[in-house]
Amino acid sequence: MRDPFMQAALDEARNGLAEGGIPIGSVLVIDGTIVGRGHNRRVQHGSAILHAEMDCFEQAGRLKPADYKRATLYSTLSPCDMCSGTALLYGIPKIVVGENQTFQGPEEYVRSRGVKLTILQDAECIQLMEDFIASSPQLWYEDIGKE
Amino acid sequence: MRDPFMQAALDEARNGLAEGGIPIGSVLVIDGTIVGRGHNRRVQHGSAILHAEMDCFEQAGRLKPADYKRATLYSTLSPCDMCSGTALLYGIPKIVVGENQTFQGPEEYVRSRGVKLTILQDAECIQLMEDFIASSPQLWYEDIGKE
Repeated sequence: MRDPFMQAALDEARNGLAEGGIPIGSVLVIDGTIVGRGHNRRVQHGSAILHAEMDCFEQAGRLKPADYKRATLYSTLSPCDMCSGTALLYGIPKIVVGENQTFQGPEEYVRSRGVKLTILQDAECIQLMEDFIASSPQLWYEDIGKE
Repeated sequence: MRDPFMQAALDEARNGLAEGGIPIGSVLVIDGTIVGRGHNRRVQHGSAILHAEMDCFEQAGRLKPADYKRATLYSTLSPCDMCSGTALLYGIPKIVVGENQTFQGPEEYVRSRGVKLTILQDAECIQLMEDFIASSPQLWYEDIGKE
């Protein structure tokens, strides 16, 4: 049985895939409630910055600094430098990650800044990304800035 | 005489202030040409992620990974964790910063990742932020996630 918040992030990832986008999803949870949901919108919005976590933070809107300090960020994939940096900016104390086998962000650095990172290695999250990377390698490399 | 690219970033910061926003501006330069311009849009767009550099990356659009690798990012203020992380994601090799006296991002970490950071300590950039922070401290603290 999957954690309901990771399930919500996975649902977002699948929504993104259904739109023709990159299948990564994220939710932001405060006091047991989802306050923001997002998925990667590079394709859908022609965006260079709307990774799933960024879209999620944006959908959550302008929160009070104190609210972020008790939030948990869920993402189906290990957050990249940009998304990790955003979590650090706002002082998010916990990040739950679906998997870090198809991509790994700066996890060691994020931990060194005091964030508790939990990696689930969820088989469905892994499969979703493996299938996507195999079918759309160019788009995937663009998303992570790789040539 | 100010570097013309830093002048363009400062012009963006002043545009943001004129809109009632936080006066931080940024430009992205590739091969001597400005390919993106942006300013902080927290107030104007109710945004939690559109710092000046993020707005600049977004305005530049979906560039090829190789293009970022020869870009220089200009910002009137030392990039925060989020904006520094975005530069790291895309492998931006050079960042020119107007000033780091009113706020300092993770400069040491960014340098440790191989980025060349140049800090100008531009008196006008400093004055602009000092005046803004004095007049709107709550908005400023929100922007950097401080309580």
